[in-house]
Amino acid sequence: MYLNPVRHITFDALDPYRTAEFWAAVTGYALEDSEPDDDQVLLDPPQPGVPGLLFSRVPDGKTAKNRVHLDIQPATGTRDEEVARLVGLGARVLDDRRTADGLGWVVLADPEGNELCVERGAVERGLV
Amino acid sequence: MYLNPVRHITFDALDPYRTAEFWAAVTGYALEDSEPDDDQVLLDPPQPGVPGLLFSRVPDGKTAKNRVHLDIQPATGTRDEEVARLVGLGARVLDDRRTADGLGWVVLADPEGNELCVERGAVERGLV
Repeated sequence: MYLNPVRHITFDALDPYRTAEFWAAVTGYALEDSEPDDDQVLLDPPQPGVPGLLFSRVPDGKTAKNRVHLDIQPATGTRDEEVARLVGLGARVLDDRRTADGLGWVVLADPEGNELCVERGAVERGLV
Repeated sequence: MYLNPVRHITFDALDPYRTAEFWAAVTGYALEDSEPDDDQVLLDPPQPGVPGLLFSRVPDGKTAKNRVHLDIQPATGTRDEEVARLVGLGARVLDDRRTADGLGWVVLADPEGNELCVERGAVERGLV
């Protein structure tokens, strides 16, 4: 079995549980049994070898653009459907980089302001 | 085949190639064919479904502690061997959280100052 040394992608969070709930809905990863006031909340990876997402309580909020972010490539729906879905989950659009030829991406912020990019989906890319 | 919507973990970088080389050595992921002056450098994931690591050129350096970082769990050697190895690759120790009972972790910075944590290895945890 492949053991990935990248064990977790860890997010500082003012509200780990709420932020984890958002990312569980983004990724489909499973929210591990936890309580809303837990200091650490884990999303289990969907298969061995995939880094889990860990949300860890910190006292301070975000002050600068993150230098590390996740790129989301929808597995089933389109980029535009995914952007609409995530906005419905509480994301904000920071920068719309979609172009008239159907290419490009959208930069969103999660409920704590962490940047993420939504790019064209696997279906739109002909990958499935 | 599982399609992971988390496609890339993307790092802003002043020097994408150099930073990618460091992380290739950390993770064992493969550096995709690229040149030292490329604006984007990709580390291919080791197996399908694992997010790749993408390094993307930006004009500005780091100004604050990252709110997203990677936790490294060595697949073969120990935590302490891994810390020494990464320091040899150019990492700096930011915060040594190892405890006398053998638990704990070390916070390092990559060559551009991005934080990462090295925790006890899979062998030390009895996982393999």
